[in-house]
Amino acid sequence: MAEYNFALSQPVRIEFGEGKAERIQDLANKYGFTKGILICDKLFVNNGYAQKIIDITDSLVDIYSDITPNPLLSEVKKACALIKEAKADYVVAMGGGSSMDLAKFACAMVNEDGDILDYFYNRKSFTKKPIPLIVIPTTAGTGSEVTSVSVCTNDENGDKVANAREVFFAHTALVDPNLTHSLPPFVTATTGLDAMAHAFEAYWCKAHNPISDGLAIAALKKIFANILTAYKDGKNAKAREEMSLGSLIAGLAFAPTRTAGVHACSYPLSMYMHLCHGEACAFTLDSFIRINGNADKDRMMYLAHELGFNCFNCMADKVYEMKKEMGMKLTLKDVGIDDVPFMAEKCANEPLLNNNPIKLNKEQLEDMLNKLK
Amino acid sequence: MAEYNFALSQPVRIEFGEGKAERIQDLANKYGFTKGILICDKLFVNNGYAQKIIDITDSLVDIYSDITPNPLLSEVKKACALIKEAKADYVVAMGGGSSMDLAKFACAMVNEDGDILDYFYNRKSFTKKPIPLIVIPTTAGTGSEVTSVSVCTNDENGDKVANAREVFFAHTALVDPNLTHSLPPFVTATTGLDAMAHAFEAYWCKAHNPISDGLAIAALKKIFANILTAYKDGKNAKAREEMSLGSLIAGLAFAPTRTAGVHACSYPLSMYMHLCHGEACAFTLDSFIRINGNADKDRMMYLAHELGFNCFNCMADKVYEMKKEMGMKLTLKDVGIDDVPFMAEKCANEPLLNNNPIKLNKEQLEDMLNKLK
Repeated sequence: MAEYNFALSQPVRIEFGEGKAERIQDLANKYGFTKGILICDKLFVNNGYAQKIIDITDSLVDIYSDITPNPLLSEVKKACALIKEAKADYVVAMGGGSSMDLAKFACAMVNEDGDILDYFYNRKSFTKKPIPLIVIPTTAGTGSEVTSVSVCTNDENGDKVANAREVFFAHTALVDPNLTHSLPPFVTATTGLDAMAHAFEAYWCKAHNPISDGLAIAALKKIFANILTAYKDGKNAKAREEMSLGSLIAGLAFAPTRTAGVHACSYPLSMYMHLCHGEACAFTLDSFIRINGNADKDRMMYLAHELGFNCFNCMADKVYEMKKEMGMKLTLKDVGIDDVPFMAEKCANEPLLNNNPIKLNKEQLEDMLNKLK
Repeated sequence: MAEYNFALSQPVRIEFGEGKAERIQDLANKYGFTKGILICDKLFVNNGYAQKIIDITDSLVDIYSDITPNPLLSEVKKACALIKEAKADYVVAMGGGSSMDLAKFACAMVNEDGDILDYFYNRKSFTKKPIPLIVIPTTAGTGSEVTSVSVCTNDENGDKVANAREVFFAHTALVDPNLTHSLPPFVTATTGLDAMAHAFEAYWCKAHNPISDGLAIAALKKIFANILTAYKDGKNAKAREEMSLGSLIAGLAFAPTRTAGVHACSYPLSMYMHLCHGEACAFTLDSFIRINGNADKDRMMYLAHELGFNCFNCMADKVYEMKKEMGMKLTLKDVGIDDVPFMAEKCANEPLLNNNPIKLNKEQLEDMLNKLK
């Protein structure tokens, strides 16, 4: 009996290689872009890298860097205003998830006439062609460079919404592992574990398909083999390149499937315990390997064997050891969770849990968390 | 040291599943297509399936089926004329490589003003937006549904050129394994071996990249595990589905890398010995596994282990056995080659040989062929 029925679309052009970030002008020439705005984290303004990029890219005329870690709709509007004022015909977003997510929304919004809230709450569809966006990830983690998802926050009420829209796909992702060489070990660990979580979730989620399976396995092989080296020896160009590839391939894997239980639980962990996204994902990753392994033994044993483990619990043990070695928070006490039922309830309400191979209720999530005492 | 530098783009939307071919109208509605032409092999006109598709697809108004196995530029022109006459705003191509390749060229050409020969010989670029093309492969083999390649022949002088153009990418690939259930065993074997060759060549070619590697491995696992079952038991829905997936994933793998030695040699084998494309690829596939294995031992041993073989020569042995079991031609005598130096010289002149991990000269190709006595 046949079993698959799926759709996917991956329109983002990918250019991968060391030094690519410094050849934006080549891309602009290739596609006829004449005037661009650079959207990037303040970090790159402060360390001078944004100015360097502007200096070597003739067609980039201005910088927008007013971006909070959870980008706000008011910031999207400000970026739109700058794009309009400059009469820019393309945008470059350089950074982690925040600047890419902000730029995706701004590039789709800039030519629309309606109220941004209507688009944010999906009461209105984008009808205009977005301004072409070149995204340049600076971590090996988010995968946002190849997804149609933009996570922004409504400043008026704090609503944080992950919108997936066809118009949010970037024109081109320039993936340059050189940009990750200076990431501090903690950021290498959390973003690398986020990428690992993307690949696991693409594989085990209900929406998995055979193409994402193949990509998820390829990504996990690279991430398992290189995350500790990249963490301990940030200047190791090969490990950094493999992590950039692992993160990119994990992004391609989960772009059409979305994520599942680990990401569902990460949102309340970030919101209430203030863990950064990667550490929030890492916190329950090994727990979900065990739980989802028991729920879908054949597929998870297959994955374990593909990755060189004898059992899926051995794979979970390895993830736990890696987290420990990289100084991640491991216990409820480390994270500061004292009200387990409250946290379990918040996790149970997350819609992404519906994409987990088994739906966990509040009691099961409480049980999972209590094992992390 | 970092090692990768690559670019890729895969804009084709993919919809996979049993029965998809009969839901073209859903797609037309989704994308606002109002009037379409069906381009398909004469086979589907003769067996009534083309009429069935027309009957259940409100917006399809006419059929073009004048297609030779090596589609001619005169046929492309005729298809363009029909599209214009019908004022069609989309095209559906259903069939093997021939109808898809013809339709790709026609959809890109229909709005252009110049002489088709200028586009064919790459003296002129396509400047207009192509008409959206929905491709529906009816074999598990060609991969043409996700590549930007169209192979056509100039009737005036017999020149057969494989053109790769961004505008040749289809709008959507509808992959429906049901359509392959009635393929006769010989076609199942040759098209399946073509798909196998695509995956091998994507993996070992000079232009390989880590994303195509992952896809090639995923494709080869499916093809090795299912080709014999699909050959022996054409109604086995699971084996057919796995072969459709294997062929699609192999297509995704080689779309950005192109192919190498096996395909290079297949062209003279088809031209002078009249082997169909898949059998021509199959003829040297195991030879190239051995030759390329010796040229790049680490990568080929890795591949062999991934596929459950102890050595790359064991993998070649298995391919040979499978070919034998499926009645493929195995020797020079079977194929009718008596002038080995002539054939070797023709193979040596093929440009795709430059994408093989080692460049083989005429003597080495002669040597390879002589081992097939």
